[in-house]
Amino acid sequence: MRDITADDLEALATGAWILGTGGGGNPYMGLLNMRELYRDGRRCRLMAPDELDDGDAVAVVSAMGAPLVGRERLKDPRPIVRSVEIMQAATGVRFRALMSLEVGGGNAFQPFLAAALMDLPVVDADCMGRAFPEGQMTSFAVGGLSNAPMAMADIRDNEVVFLRAESWTRMERMARRVCVEWGSTAATCLAPRTGREVKDWGIPGTTTRAIALGRAVAAARAAHTDPVAAIVEAEGGRRLFVAKVRDVARRTTEGFLRGTATLEGLDADRGRTMTIDFQNEFAVAWADGEAVAMTPDLICVIDSVDGEAVGTEMLRYGQRVSVVVLPAPPVFLSPDGLALVGPRAFGHDLDFRSAFEASADAGD
Amino acid sequence: MRDITADDLEALATGAWILGTGGGGNPYMGLLNMRELYRDGRRCRLMAPDELDDGDAVAVVSAMGAPLVGRERLKDPRPIVRSVEIMQAATGVRFRALMSLEVGGGNAFQPFLAAALMDLPVVDADCMGRAFPEGQMTSFAVGGLSNAPMAMADIRDNEVVFLRAESWTRMERMARRVCVEWGSTAATCLAPRTGREVKDWGIPGTTTRAIALGRAVAAARAAHTDPVAAIVEAEGGRRLFVAKVRDVARRTTEGFLRGTATLEGLDADRGRTMTIDFQNEFAVAWADGEAVAMTPDLICVIDSVDGEAVGTEMLRYGQRVSVVVLPAPPVFLSPDGLALVGPRAFGHDLDFRSAFEASADAGD
Repeated sequence: MRDITADDLEALATGAWILGTGGGGNPYMGLLNMRELYRDGRRCRLMAPDELDDGDAVAVVSAMGAPLVGRERLKDPRPIVRSVEIMQAATGVRFRALMSLEVGGGNAFQPFLAAALMDLPVVDADCMGRAFPEGQMTSFAVGGLSNAPMAMADIRDNEVVFLRAESWTRMERMARRVCVEWGSTAATCLAPRTGREVKDWGIPGTTTRAIALGRAVAAARAAHTDPVAAIVEAEGGRRLFVAKVRDVARRTTEGFLRGTATLEGLDADRGRTMTIDFQNEFAVAWADGEAVAMTPDLICVIDSVDGEAVGTEMLRYGQRVSVVVLPAPPVFLSPDGLALVGPRAFGHDLDFRSAFEASADAGD
Repeated sequence: MRDITADDLEALATGAWILGTGGGGNPYMGLLNMRELYRDGRRCRLMAPDELDDGDAVAVVSAMGAPLVGRERLKDPRPIVRSVEIMQAATGVRFRALMSLEVGGGNAFQPFLAAALMDLPVVDADCMGRAFPEGQMTSFAVGGLSNAPMAMADIRDNEVVFLRAESWTRMERMARRVCVEWGSTAATCLAPRTGREVKDWGIPGTTTRAIALGRAVAAARAAHTDPVAAIVEAEGGRRLFVAKVRDVARRTTEGFLRGTATLEGLDADRGRTMTIDFQNEFAVAWADGEAVAMTPDLICVIDSVDGEAVGTEMLRYGQRVSVVVLPAPPVFLSPDGLALVGPRAFGHDLDFRSAFEASADAGD
């Protein structure tokens, strides 16, 4: 168990936004809220999964919705607390700790927002290791754990508990429909997890990893060295493309932000074109028509100058960006994992091929 | 308290289908189920609202969905029981009795389906006095009663409790979204009502009224007299138009069946045209371009030969029908009532004008 400092939160915002692979919502709103809560004297603690007893109950929290909507509405920590309270009332469970559904993007902050008000620690783990657009795209679903119940609240006094769902996907779709009805933004508390389940199927250390990634970028900025190189170095990733954004087709539909970005190569990539399809998160990157990176590998679009991630909702003409690919959490590389989060789960008729295998092949 | 006979159920099917004003779902599936349950020795009882103690809890049940889907899927009494059980578990309330959201259409049978399995009486009242497409279109909403909680279940192990909603309309829309996700069919248990609330704001005697209406039609058939005249007589209604169905535009969308029927006048109405717009139920009838009947008055399309109601999902070219209008339940004629169920609530920019006023004017 360790204290999270105000400085950790700044680094978390940078690192989580990179791990969001374009989605998960910009962490800036969550960071602003946390700064305010810390100014008011609130403090958060981070605990390792191993510190949980097997029988402890852990609340997995998340903001659901379309990233573009998340930019337009200030976050309020109360709905996320409310979703946890609803879950406790519905199940009789008393939570020992909070954890994030996804470390990528603004959802890295959701457990801290609740923790600051509820005086519970945050578990240093998540169940995506990045961001994914849909609630069934989790390591817990890969592990076949229960999908229910799920609690949901918004700022306008709407509250729902999904008690049972025939499948993880049905749970996601039911909740998504209600989320859309609420304006494509909702606070959710997902199926309660035991300490044992978090230890067996959670992706450990992801908050610490995001903070470290944020610090690496900050150090590069301070030293006037290449922040994109720092990201690649910190995460064992690859720089895929250096480019200018030429076009973005984007629409908010069915509670998601979907579209395609077209990038025009610069420097060594001059004359080449990359297109990246996204559903909240970047899903598949094509270089001159060939799929060169795909989910669950992390496709990250980074501002070439300052190393800040660029979200799918903020991409715009003329931005100078570097496309970086980071390795997928291993749990998603099994057949069960790829069925949930591989390219076909995003509507692309492709067999998953790791960008890191491709790199090895290129050296043949 | 009186026993409901198998014969009552047959009459209820005919009468409720007429009061459905085209919607509420064909009662035939519910009737088939009830015949089966009665063959198995189950029995139901009907109690007057006045027999309730003020503090009794009453479960208001309903099948939600699009009528066309209701035709395609056999009813199963278990989800409606399940929705009541979920409500009891979520609230700790023990129900004294069941009642119907709407007496019109198949929902007249929903409390009986649950009652046959749960050994609870059915209250002789509803909160629509007919059928309406949306959950906020109730006498309870006119009375400003609470809109939550609401429980919902389906045949595939999906279960939801809507704990709080900012408004009746939001509750309807949230539930409708989930209903659509389930294939536009769901069993619902609405906000629990006290005996006092049912006595103050329920529409009393509607099951008895539907049974009497069904008996009047059966008597006319047996006597080879005009069943449409029997309906008009029993309900104090008016025959508006005698016609052949010329065209039906119909689509299942957003969990509703919407469209327009075009009728070609026969006999005294030869040379005239009537169009009727519907959203599950018939909403506004136009004769040669003039609005001659509108919600909340009951616009009923009746088979001219056998007096059977024709649902919006079953209208088809060539049917010989009589359009009948019956007076709206008085609770809906207040400004609050008309705001909820008048023509503007169905997207028609019309001030409500009763077909019965129009009739008086015509005599000037």
